[in-house]
Amino acid sequence: MPLIRTTLADKIGTIAFDHDDKRNALGADLIAEVIAALDSFKADGARVVVLRSASGGKVWSAGHDVGELPRADVDPLPYSDPLEQLLRAVKAFPAPVIAMVHGSAWGGACDLVMACDLVMGDETCAFAITPAKLGLPYNVAGILNFMSRLPLTVVKEMFFSANLISAERAERVGIVNQVVPAASLEAETYAMARTIASRSSKAIAASKEAIRVLSESVPINPATYEYLHGLRRDVYFGPDYHEGTAAFLEKRAPKF
Amino acid sequence: MPLIRTTLADKIGTIAFDHDDKRNALGADLIAEVIAALDSFKADGARVVVLRSASGGKVWSAGHDVGELPRADVDPLPYSDPLEQLLRAVKAFPAPVIAMVHGSAWGGACDLVMACDLVMGDETCAFAITPAKLGLPYNVAGILNFMSRLPLTVVKEMFFSANLISAERAERVGIVNQVVPAASLEAETYAMARTIASRSSKAIAASKEAIRVLSESVPINPATYEYLHGLRRDVYFGPDYHEGTAAFLEKRAPKF
Amino acid sequence: MPLIRTTLADKIGTIAFDHDDKRNALGADLIAEVIAALDSFKADGARVVVLRSASGGKVWSAGHDVGELPRADVDPLPYSDPLEQLLRAVKAFPAPVIAMVHGSAWGGACDLVMACDLVMGDETCAFAITPAKLGLPYNVAGILNFMSRLPLTVVKEMFFSANLISAERAERVGIVNQVVPAASLEAETYAMARTIASRSSKAIAASKEAIRVLSESVPINPATYEYLHGLRRDVYFGPDYHEGTAAFLEKRAPKF
Amino acid sequence: MPLIRTTLADKIGTIAFDHDDKRNALGADLIAEVIAALDSFKADGARVVVLRSASGGKVWSAGHDVGELPRADVDPLPYSDPLEQLLRAVKAFPAPVIAMVHGSAWGGACDLVMACDLVMGDETCAFAITPAKLGLPYNVAGILNFMSRLPLTVVKEMFFSANLISAERAERVGIVNQVVPAASLEAETYAMARTIASRSSKAIAASKEAIRVLSESVPINPATYEYLHGLRRDVYFGPDYHEGTAAFLEKRAPKF
Amino acid sequence: MPLIRTTLADKIGTIAFDHDDKRNALGADLIAEVIAALDSFKADGARVVVLRSASGGKVWSAGHDVGELPRADVDPLPYSDPLEQLLRAVKAFPAPVIAMVHGSAWGGACDLVMACDLVMGDETCAFAITPAKLGLPYNVAGILNFMSRLPLTVVKEMFFSANLISAERAERVGIVNQVVPAASLEAETYAMARTIASRSSKAIAASKEAIRVLSESVPINPATYEYLHGLRRDVYFGPDYHEGTAAFLEKRAPKF
Amino acid sequence: MPLIRTTLADKIGTIAFDHDDKRNALGADLIAEVIAALDSFKADGARVVVLRSASGGKVWSAGHDVGELPRADVDPLPYSDPLEQLLRAVKAFPAPVIAMVHGSAWGGACDLVMACDLVMGDETCAFAITPAKLGLPYNVAGILNFMSRLPLTVVKEMFFSANLISAERAERVGIVNQVVPAASLEAETYAMARTIASRSSKAIAASKEAIRVLSESVPINPATYEYLHGLRRDVYFGPDYHEGTAAFLEKRAPKF
Ligand code: NI
Ligand code: NI
Ligand code: NI
Repeated sequence: MPLIRTTLADKIGTIAFDHDDKRNALGADLIAEVIAALDSFKADGARVVVLRSASGGKVWSAGHDVGELPRADVDPLPYSDPLEQLLRAVKAFPAPVIAMVHGSAWGGACDLVMACDLVMGDETCAFAITPAKLGLPYNVAGILNFMSRLPLTVVKEMFFSANLISAERAERVGIVNQVVPAASLEAETYAMARTIASRSSKAIAASKEAIRVLSESVPINPATYEYLHGLRRDVYFGPDYHEGTAAFLEKRAPKF
Repeated sequence: MPLIRTTLADKIGTIAFDHDDKRNALGADLIAEVIAALDSFKADGARVVVLRSASGGKVWSAGHDVGELPRADVDPLPYSDPLEQLLRAVKAFPAPVIAMVHGSAWGGACDLVMACDLVMGDETCAFAITPAKLGLPYNVAGILNFMSRLPLTVVKEMFFSANLISAERAERVGIVNQVVPAASLEAETYAMARTIASRSSKAIAASKEAIRVLSESVPINPATYEYLHGLRRDVYFGPDYHEGTAAFLEKRAPKF
Repeated sequence: MPLIRTTLADKIGTIAFDHDDKRNALGADLIAEVIAALDSFKADGARVVVLRSASGGKVWSAGHDVGELPRADVDPLPYSDPLEQLLRAVKAFPAPVIAMVHGSAWGGACDLVMACDLVMGDETCAFAITPAKLGLPYNVAGILNFMSRLPLTVVKEMFFSANLISAERAERVGIVNQVVPAASLEAETYAMARTIASRSSKAIAASKEAIRVLSESVPINPATYEYLHGLRRDVYFGPDYHEGTAAFLEKRAPKF
Repeated sequence: MPLIRTTLADKIGTIAFDHDDKRNALGADLIAEVIAALDSFKADGARVVVLRSASGGKVWSAGHDVGELPRADVDPLPYSDPLEQLLRAVKAFPAPVIAMVHGSAWGGACDLVMACDLVMGDETCAFAITPAKLGLPYNVAGILNFMSRLPLTVVKEMFFSANLISAERAERVGIVNQVVPAASLEAETYAMARTIASRSSKAIAASKEAIRVLSESVPINPATYEYLHGLRRDVYFGPDYHEGTAAFLEKRAPKF
Repeated sequence: MPLIRTTLADKIGTIAFDHDDKRNALGADLIAEVIAALDSFKADGARVVVLRSASGGKVWSAGHDVGELPRADVDPLPYSDPLEQLLRAVKAFPAPVIAMVHGSAWGGACDLVMACDLVMGDETCAFAITPAKLGLPYNVAGILNFMSRLPLTVVKEMFFSANLISAERAERVGIVNQVVPAASLEAETYAMARTIASRSSKAIAASKEAIRVLSESVPINPATYEYLHGLRRDVYFGPDYHEGTAAFLEKRAPKF
Repeated sequence: MPLIRTTLADKIGTIAFDHDDKRNALGADLIAEVIAALDSFKADGARVVVLRSASGGKVWSAGHDVGELPRADVDPLPYSDPLEQLLRAVKAFPAPVIAMVHGSAWGGACDLVMACDLVMGDETCAFAITPAKLGLPYNVAGILNFMSRLPLTVVKEMFFSANLISAERAERVGIVNQVVPAASLEAETYAMARTIASRSSKAIAASKEAIRVLSESVPINPATYEYLHGLRRDVYFGPDYHEGTAAFLEKRAPKF
């Protein structure tokens, strides 16, 4: 039984998370379906894709399925991690991907929103990046994804406090392009999609790729990278990652 | 007959576009006059320059003169393009250049505003970057000019939708420093200019140049650059650029 | 007699400037105390530090003690400058540092706020970067510190005009995370501090360091750097630096 | 009739140019065969590939088929150029490629040798890079390929004089790993191939890819790249490229 | 019982490996002694350090103690690895370190020689980098250490074949500064050390640090780095690393 | 009375140092003449320039005129230093510059040779970089100029020992393109010059500029650069620079 619903009409593809009992968590199965849908849309020449929740529930997506995170002593966010694959697939998709966000996006889902090209939200949208609650050292490319989007102080507030950013603030700090009333979110999102679909898809694809390259271009030396990776490694071999994930699964507050 | 008007008083230079019947389009002739004015102001020790429209019409500038764009199969935005020369002249000018924007700035004119150091606007100011309507692959340095200024999602919305950004939003996302009522735009702009002119022009020149270098410093490898240029080349050798420019000149919607 | 007051409670350290008759200027003595306090907090495992003014006066800090700036013909902001050391100490501190700003922050103090991880302010907070008034060529790393935080047009307005940015605008452009009423500034700041202290300090430390590295990563070639340094050198060997600092100490307007 | 011969034995693939009447020129047809052979070897798990000439004639390969070079006014070395595709295929091949060079390698063939991982030659091997004779502006990534291999003065001598570098000097300056007598070239080359094939192919593939990334990592800003591309463009739109290619095809000396 | 011998005379420090029965393998204990010796020399103001083998045996150092390498499924060369610490200590030492090499240097010892500032060798010196025999994916900073020293084709030959480079070739390709007869190696090395000790140690320290920074400056994007690390990870989680290390310890040829 | 002799024939310019009693030291006057000659050759369309000594004496050039070096407490190698200007003029000259070296090149003259495109020498040529004898901290761009040319161990040996590199070794390590007998140096140099002059000067100019950009592209962060500059500053404000220059002028050995 599929975990997402997809449609393609007028060159506009739609991918809707449809896994309410897991609060649309980004488990490996759901991610595989999303990547397959993107591949299919690409083959069919979609000129824009809308990424949304099917149900309109309170949670747009709960993010990583914490139960699927690797055990302690292993990097929880390696290059081959399914979510990492999804983020790359969205960024490399040759047409704009619009996140249409009703409800809250947590952790990896927040990172996914940041990987989308445009973000349309309503008054219920909210965003939190939660690794500081899990004792999980976020990967450098993931941190950069946020830094390429948001003011530095906001990035730090999000990563250090793990607090939820409300819709009003999300618009002000640039997480979303526009916050519109919930009743018109769908209409506004698809209006934007239709506009984009009417433009030159070739010119858009070339500029999306240039923007991707430029926004990822924050080069650091190998020695520096290995130092940062060493800091991360000390965390995932240390007690915080164990305690944070255990507490989450036991639905209790962690003791760091 | 000149296409611009210039004055220099109290170390404040003013360049006013004055070519209403072409909606102040940035044709080669007008650009040559602007560059000459900048050279002259530099020689005369101007400490700040205001770039404005003379007429106060609805269009600050229509941007590239599409009729002057090169034919298909040739890069429409080479290094030697007059507009590219103008953008470099503004960035290299050793004193701040303030764009005073009443009305709309389109395409290349929008890029020009982004090349200015400060932007003062009123409630009529509006900004659109239009290559996706022309099927024109924008150059990488030009895209970076927007990325160095604006939140990433806004850059993408502008490049992918080609929609006009209103004054209110332009202030919120950082295109303009301040939006003031039309009646006081001139007064506020020149007040800012006088303040800047009273400061140490040498210290300002050194910091403007450092900011230019730092903001352009998004280094990418030659192999990557040639890949991006190859994507652009496929567009200007392909059908979209031909159709987009033809439709524009025929005043019809393009069929991409 | 100490120039600061410090406390550490519940893993939250507080450093309060307490030098009213110098308007909390960042002189070498005060800086040495702040750095010592940071070292001590680090040894004691502080999970967050609040940096504030003790008195609640109109000036949070006046910035560099201009009387301590080096004579003309010498770089006023070398690597070993006490303020430069303080900025590095704040950035390298392995836990978040929150600037709690009541009143105005001038020059070097404005740079210090930009070096903090989060900024909480009230309606009196205001920020100005003043080297253009002193004829002082700011150092490249310092300019980058502002560019990594603020929209480019705001950076330029601040450096070129030396004008004060008000609380309302400081929130809009991203200098502060939140502006709250003066009466609740302390409560809100320490609430944020407690939240951060409850998270995984190890995961936060690793991400703070990654963010620091990424935000400082704007690499430029040695030849370019030496060119920029040459521009600065021409200013501090030239008349503007002499006139600007003299005028400041004589409490008169400089004649540039 | 194929223009190359291929074999695969003991995990060692061999690709031999076999187009004597065109002096093994790297025309689009021959290149397509080589790329197809590499794809096939990759699928079959080859652990090393030897690239050689079948005939043992005086010319290892004449390089670009000048008759296939684009007309004037078009970039002769775009990203999609067949030779550029071949160079990328060799560099991206997940196992070492050894150039076994008997005879001379000209122009594009010289670039191809530089793209191989190891180079074994005999006393007849010789190397020239000839764009200065054709009035052809070489692409930046291509120049970097030489710079990543050879001392800077040698790169300049080769590009500015277009002179042939002899076997003895090629060994001294690092073009070839080893020069051995012609009679033992094949034996020595395949001995090296067998050694490599006995090692961990996975560890080798990972290090080859890291070396590729590091050696291509000479990042430059978009503005700088567009300036360099502008210089190249002035050449291929100018008289030298027309005269150089015409003279070559007419087998006469060019008059620059 | 110490594993090294140290002396300091005339500002020249000497560290001699003295662990013949382990062939001077770079185990954690020996490394700790070397780092402590460097710290002590630094405190005592040594102006140059000579790194040598005490015994003059056939092996200068066998490199990593393979028995100490981490088990499969863990990165064998993390940032905190003792050898990595030693390499950084040598590079950061504020005076030149001269490797005086009699005999062969294997694997990590070969990397150590590359980390030294100058290399003096005699006719017995020889160098091999052996991870391709162990199925061990070398770290990116380590590969760069070789690339900053040696011609690219030589780096590839060494990493892909794991063959030993002889003294004669080591001098030609730039591994050693000078190969001298074994009888005069000590005399020549200390003559060089005395010359260096007579120069301005402050000027030397500043230039050594600049050279270190410049030679490590090959910046790559986080996304690219994580891709390369992912390739390495696939190797150390895969069969080759297990087989390679097992075969080594069992003194048999590995079957990859 | 001019300090150089110049000729231009067959598009080949020659600049000969002719200041024997100062051993062709690179004083400000001589440098001004060389730069003027380059400007003149550029205006006249020279396709190659030969830089040589007129007299054929034992010293090609003594380098910096130490008597002209700035006093202590000031950077001895600022961007505006005449020699720095000369090095930039040679690198920016739009045609190859060949150093024809008979005799020894010291300090700044050695740097100048490294700035030339090709180097032809005879058995008397020799090269030393001497700042470690003067207690002078070399500038970062200058160190990079050597690193872009020579093997790293050789750069370190030269900077740390200040020893002279002989002709034989200079050829082996890549300082010179070719060492030829003194009797044929002139003939061989001008033969090379004629070959270059016969090629496409436009294609050569474009590739020279690309090579310059690529070879200078070793980007480092502002914070890192300021750290390195701080190390240099500690030296030129410290005792070694004072003692080194004083000893040189007093023709005695320095006591560091
Ligand atoms: Ni790892
Ligand atoms: Ni300085
Ligand atoms: Ni092009």
